[in-house]
Amino acid sequence: MVPHLITALNGPINELEQRILESMPAIERWFRLEWMEHTPPFYTSVDVRNAGFKLAPVDTNLFPGGWNNLTPEMLPLAVQAAMAAIEKICPEAKNLLLIPEKHTRNTFYLANVKQLMQIFSLAGLNVRLGTLDESITEPTPLTLADGSTVTVEPLVRDKRRLGLKDFDPCTILLNNDLSAGIPKVLENLHEQYLLPPLHAGWAVRRKSQHFEAYEEVAKKFAKLLGMDPWLINPMFASCGKVNFSEGSGIECVQSNADALLGKIRRKYKEYGIQEKPFVVVKADNGTYGMGIMTVRDAKDLDELNRRTRNKMSVIKDGQEVTEVIIQEGVPTYERVNDAVAEPVVYMLDRYVVGGFYRVHAERGIDENLNAPGASFVPLAFAEAYHLPKPGEKPGVSAPNRFYMYGVIGRLAMLAASYELEAHDPDAEIYE
Amino acid sequence: MVPHLITALNGPINELEQRILESMPAIERWFRLEWMEHTPPFYTSVDVRNAGFKLAPVDTNLFPGGWNNLTPEMLPLAVQAAMAAIEKICPEAKNLLLIPEKHTRNTFYLANVKQLMQIFSLAGLNVRLGTLDESITEPTPLTLADGSTVTVEPLVRDKRRLGLKDFDPCTILLNNDLSAGIPKVLENLHEQYLLPPLHAGWAVRRKSQHFEAYEEVAKKFAKLLGMDPWLINPMFASCGKVNFSEGSGIECVQSNADALLGKIRRKYKEYGIQEKPFVVVKADNGTYGMGIMTVRDAKDLDELNRRTRNKMSVIKDGQEVTEVIIQEGVPTYERVNDAVAEPVVYMLDRYVVGGFYRVHAERGIDENLNAPGASFVPLAFAEAYHLPKPGEKPGVSAPNRFYMYGVIGRLAMLAASYELEAHDPDAEIYE
Repeated sequence: MVPHLITALNGPINELEQRILESMPAIERWFRLEWMEHTPPFYTSVDVRNAGFKLAPVDTNLFPGGWNNLTPEMLPLAVQAAMAAIEKICPEAKNLLLIPEKHTRNTFYLANVKQLMQIFSLAGLNVRLGTLDESITEPTPLTLADGSTVTVEPLVRDKRRLGLKDFDPCTILLNNDLSAGIPKVLENLHEQYLLPPLHAGWAVRRKSQHFEAYEEVAKKFAKLLGMDPWLINPMFASCGKVNFSEGSGIECVQSNADALLGKIRRKYKEYGIQEKPFVVVKADNGTYGMGIMTVRDAKDLDELNRRTRNKMSVIKDGQEVTEVIIQEGVPTYERVNDAVAEPVVYMLDRYVVGGFYRVHAERGIDENLNAPGASFVPLAFAEAYHLPKPGEKPGVSAPNRFYMYGVIGRLAMLAASYELEAHDPDAEIYE
Repeated sequence: MVPHLITALNGPINELEQRILESMPAIERWFRLEWMEHTPPFYTSVDVRNAGFKLAPVDTNLFPGGWNNLTPEMLPLAVQAAMAAIEKICPEAKNLLLIPEKHTRNTFYLANVKQLMQIFSLAGLNVRLGTLDESITEPTPLTLADGSTVTVEPLVRDKRRLGLKDFDPCTILLNNDLSAGIPKVLENLHEQYLLPPLHAGWAVRRKSQHFEAYEEVAKKFAKLLGMDPWLINPMFASCGKVNFSEGSGIECVQSNADALLGKIRRKYKEYGIQEKPFVVVKADNGTYGMGIMTVRDAKDLDELNRRTRNKMSVIKDGQEVTEVIIQEGVPTYERVNDAVAEPVVYMLDRYVVGGFYRVHAERGIDENLNAPGASFVPLAFAEAYHLPKPGEKPGVSAPNRFYMYGVIGRLAMLAASYELEAHDPDAEIYE
């Protein structure tokens, strides 16, 4: 189950939704069995798109920010899930060291950090912040928009352990996606739990590896429900050596985009979908909505203007893009106050703890919404009157539309678990 | 952590509360370590009393009713905890058989049953109701106050398994405290999980055994916090052969009550407490607030009137009282709209999922509130403005007064775990 949240979509439940809602006991059982074999990532957020005919994850974040966008009502769920997570990882823990993004005084991001601190404090841990910013040499308060502060402290590393002055944590939680590479200070920490593991960071991780794992998960799940995996799986291809600023390697992107558009067109035809297919080209290790473009015709890639080339060539922390993923575009048909919206599902351990809408008034249904100008609309819990009605069959609740977003979110989380297992650099030792 | 609920008490936080709130990381760690060694009961509700100078459980229910008194906001927490519980017990489960109280068409109780069905349905199980009432021979809908129905079905027992027609459950959940004895149909079910176990029912369980285990838990916990265990532990004694209607065995109750009143008096003196001590005499296997009386002076037991004798001699399902517990009375200083109130804490697996106040306008602070005329006031989640204020130290939340009720509730739950382990009839086999 996932929280009974109210979604923006209020048209009739379509066939895919209906099938997911009806199969709840089978789905939950399947997840339970999968989690017996695989370890969920510590925390995950997943951008989901609901096209009506298709419902799919388009991005899976293993260092989720934006926790501050969850409503206070969702806090107890997050805390309970955090307790379950800690219990499994390090039951004897008293101290948690949280490492946020470096160099950030962005008050939205700081509100996220404060919310994470609160979740783990309420789960019964002493939580302090350590920074990878070496220019910070003493405890430094950073001020949030509401006037409150959080204090970041310099890391103290000895040969075996990482901590702060007078603070020795059992677990180190990264809220920094390591786009800039793996810092030395985080290497060789064999006595403490470092979560998520280093190979979950963008220095190592690749979107194409994630969606390869997701495809496997989607196939298994589709088999369970007796449906076409395409209905939940965005097709993709990838190119390894692209230089947008020099214009090299773009043929690969072009031919893959062309082939993918053809595949989508055939699928649309099969299902009688009257839409114009599009693909999204993204940095394979990208994040923060940087290095993304929508392509409706492969020919468009012939004549990329300077602005697009620049936009595509550099992502967060100044990293150059050389690998790209070309992903089937999934339009989003959800709208909040007429603006295009996509649900974002938040999970802690194996539990869906909440979600919100990312909304962008100036973007189309086929564009990336994670861009300047986006805003966040919290999802509310369903009120009592949404729950079972008199005369209804016992044990049957009103349709929980958010449930299927939680299912898709968890499928992506499971894919991340497969992905991290497949690419674990330490795994070979035991094989 | 426990849900951040708003309690009725709004005076200054006293020393005991302060110590509990400050020790949260140590307390949570201690619970995590205890749960590594001991299995929590499947679900538990605990009546707690806050006397200001003392905070203690007075009753621990292993077949809790009243789930309908939790607010809809608490439902997601309960569902998440239910998922965690199922995952541990029977991850491959699809079906749950719930066995409610027999012979009940009480609509309040049926609302509880419906809420339990909803919790486990939302956790992803097919839930159906089986009845111990042998007069029910076909599926029978029972109507709730809101006009909705729940359907109870006759049990189908074969040699090895219990189920319903076309319904084979992995887990059987009892919401029937077995006051009337252990029904044959529930015996020798070795292939399925029967929860809580049969020896948790009042046919076997004794309050005095529970409070013996609680004393052990309270001592451990008090040592952790460096405090007097009496501050959280109600003292008690018990008598084995009492017959109130015949007036035999009452000397034992009297002498124990006298000794206990003396002990309380000394404790009150030690702490400078200006209160008149009282003890509560209860059936040792009693429930439903039946067979309970408040005693302020042992001499009062000399001249029990017929009404009191009758009241004390028979409890639920017509069971005769022969064993009694004499328990230190803990006054409750919480009031809701001028009426005396006591908090009831609800737990599922090891998690506190909510609570409410039991309120009785016609009862005193030293009386049992679980009696006809009691009403239930849901506790609300704290709003955002109760959460950390600007300028506050990071990671520190506003005092969660309900937190300490959750701690006491969990101590009583842990005691129930000790108790069930100590009195497990099957345990000897493995020793």
